[in-house]
Amino acid sequence: MTPDRALRTAEVIAVGSELLGSTRLDTNSLFLSEKLESLGIALRAKSVVGDSHDDLAAIFRQALNRVDVVVLTGGLGPTDDDVTRDVVASVLELPFTEDASIVAWIEQRFTRRGMHMPEVNRRQAMVPRGATVLDNPNGTAPGLFIEHDGKAVVLLPGPPRELQPMFDRLVAGPLGARAGRERIYRTQLLTTGRGESHIEEAIQPIYSTWRTETPPIETTILATPGQIEVHLSLRSDDAARANARLAAARDSLIAVLGDTVFSLDGRPMEQILGELLRTHGLTISAAESCTGGLLLSRLTDVPGSSAYVLSGVVAYSNQGKIDLLGVSPELIATHGAVSEPVAVAMADGIRTKTGASFGIGITGIAGPDGGTPEKPVGTVAVAVIGPDGGAKVRTLQLAGSRAMIKFWSTQAAMDIARKMIVRDEAVRRR
Amino acid sequence: MTPDRALRTAEVIAVGSELLGSTRLDTNSLFLSEKLESLGIALRAKSVVGDSHDDLAAIFRQALNRVDVVVLTGGLGPTDDDVTRDVVASVLELPFTEDASIVAWIEQRFTRRGMHMPEVNRRQAMVPRGATVLDNPNGTAPGLFIEHDGKAVVLLPGPPRELQPMFDRLVAGPLGARAGRERIYRTQLLTTGRGESHIEEAIQPIYSTWRTETPPIETTILATPGQIEVHLSLRSDDAARANARLAAARDSLIAVLGDTVFSLDGRPMEQILGELLRTHGLTISAAESCTGGLLLSRLTDVPGSSAYVLSGVVAYSNQGKIDLLGVSPELIATHGAVSEPVAVAMADGIRTKTGASFGIGITGIAGPDGGTPEKPVGTVAVAVIGPDGGAKVRTLQLAGSRAMIKFWSTQAAMDIARKMIVRDEAVRRR
Repeated sequence: MTPDRALRTAEVIAVGSELLGSTRLDTNSLFLSEKLESLGIALRAKSVVGDSHDDLAAIFRQALNRVDVVVLTGGLGPTDDDVTRDVVASVLELPFTEDASIVAWIEQRFTRRGMHMPEVNRRQAMVPRGATVLDNPNGTAPGLFIEHDGKAVVLLPGPPRELQPMFDRLVAGPLGARAGRERIYRTQLLTTGRGESHIEEAIQPIYSTWRTETPPIETTILATPGQIEVHLSLRSDDAARANARLAAARDSLIAVLGDTVFSLDGRPMEQILGELLRTHGLTISAAESCTGGLLLSRLTDVPGSSAYVLSGVVAYSNQGKIDLLGVSPELIATHGAVSEPVAVAMADGIRTKTGASFGIGITGIAGPDGGTPEKPVGTVAVAVIGPDGGAKVRTLQLAGSRAMIKFWSTQAAMDIARKMIVRDEAVRRR
Repeated sequence: MTPDRALRTAEVIAVGSELLGSTRLDTNSLFLSEKLESLGIALRAKSVVGDSHDDLAAIFRQALNRVDVVVLTGGLGPTDDDVTRDVVASVLELPFTEDASIVAWIEQRFTRRGMHMPEVNRRQAMVPRGATVLDNPNGTAPGLFIEHDGKAVVLLPGPPRELQPMFDRLVAGPLGARAGRERIYRTQLLTTGRGESHIEEAIQPIYSTWRTETPPIETTILATPGQIEVHLSLRSDDAARANARLAAARDSLIAVLGDTVFSLDGRPMEQILGELLRTHGLTISAAESCTGGLLLSRLTDVPGSSAYVLSGVVAYSNQGKIDLLGVSPELIATHGAVSEPVAVAMADGIRTKTGASFGIGITGIAGPDGGTPEKPVGTVAVAVIGPDGGAKVRTLQLAGSRAMIKFWSTQAAMDIARKMIVRDEAVRRR
């Protein structure tokens, strides 16, 4: 035992043959990665192994040689397939004893449901000598925390709704206490409307200088559909100083990115726009063609959105645009259904019909068919009419799948409305 | 070299520090798992490791001891961070030579974009002795295929759009040729409208008998939002016999599950319903309240859906239901906005306005707020009026998040329309 040694590195091993198929991903490791990192413990590797005693033993033994903390998830059930408990005890050469209080606890769970505990569940009460039992209010499998040669071995049940509260309540504390004083601090911002290379070009001269500072700020740029995320992180033993440096760093990025930055806390566009609408007492309605209802669906994904989302129309056909939105057939004949004048007429039609502050109109070609040389697949006209009746209209040329084109179009429409509100706020403040 | 030995087991190692964070999952392993399994090569374990030479070397060496095929993904770029090529060559003790044709190929790619090839890209042309180069039309990093002591080591680029075609074109053939005659055969069915335990109860007496047959059929039940998937698989060296057994097995499940089975090929509900509408020359329109446009968005996710999706209305407010759909204020006052009569009136309103064969009306409480003791969160009324004017209406009591309630409601609505068409087909056939 070397109790003074700080825990700095970790490995996560997910156990279960079902996780090796093509339909299931181990998502627990994402949760654990974030939690461990926030404690200043870096994830060095992670693996998934089937319910094989020998394979798990080999992988666990190697991990134990390499890192300070090994977290094993799954394989704690009562059947022969559940090998994690046995493998860990055998590799660490720890004898088992049956824990009477765990047996009583599991029996009670079964009794509450009017059932007898099957004999096989006694396996879940076998505890390696010296291990701390982590009780599991959400399932029958208790977790285990074992200190071994100055290292920590943690066994957690596989279901996320059992694993996550167990980690937060019973594991984060003891690991954090031994993890040294350094922690990882993070901040982020989300942008939309500019491509990854544009964002990279704009901020690279800034973040590249952070690498040589002590401690360095790490910058990660992540392109996800409809937005570019910039993540900043910093390893430090001084929380106040770390957070101040991150805030200043983020501000210097905002200074060059301007209002392409729409979120500072990871909230998606529909929440950000919803919050702005609610705060200002504004309402919104939409007329959608190629996005087929996705804009309204995203807006109404936000709890409480009935306070500001009025109504909408999905006018997929020309006749629908005419009948439901009052777009004139001549306008469609002159400019085509995918055109800025028709987008504006759709926005105007739905805004007038519903009396909303904002009317949005989207018409375009989501593909894969329907494109022409003049209006290829990905051509989308987006119009937003604001509270003062002024219209903003843009024609986008988008690439990618049908789903991507739909998503990008709704993101762009919400972003135009967001900027109208934010710029109006700025004008009023002057 | 033991060239006669069949390749039966595999391990996948994903290389890249970015895959160890909390924001990125290695999804390549799902693709590879399915492809390898279909060749009869079983995945024994998979792991993710950062850009560390020593960690990767240890994990690769162990995998090589354990299995017949090791697939490494990522880490083939031109920078110092890209360690895969070096680690594999050093563990296998193979000397490198620069491949002039790869250099020429990479230079050409840069020239086409009007750029010079950076000197650093020469690293991507280093080939371990005896390796087969796998050319990459979608990126600069070629893959490598190495036969070593009767085993196969495959290096693939990380981006899925480079990895997947490379595997299909250049790796599946050589691996399959050496994989022995056994393959894994699969079939599946998707059901909706009944819970996992109901499906389990109905089919367990059937599939449990398959386990003792030779070879056994494996059954996996997977609950995903809005549907229960039943996957059957079989390891066999006789394709015709395997497929016939799987087809008979699936038929025996369909016999007990009836028309809760909606898909036999993995296609989602919106595609299945879309295909039925198209085949029968029918059209559809929808009036949505609590689903906020999600139904129309799902229907229009299908390429070519403009042939049968006419238009729709998202009437989130009572006023919207009155103004846009002609629902009478008295009906809402008498029964409440969330009620079967209002759902029917919405379906009728949109069907009449648009002249569609099918009109759908959905009104409910998606939560988390807005529930009452009589109509708790998750109460959703769904009405479908079919081509003959007959209405089907159901009140659902759904549990889960707002997103889940929205999704389930749209799934139920489409399923009612699907059953109307399918049952009508059955009647006509009599």
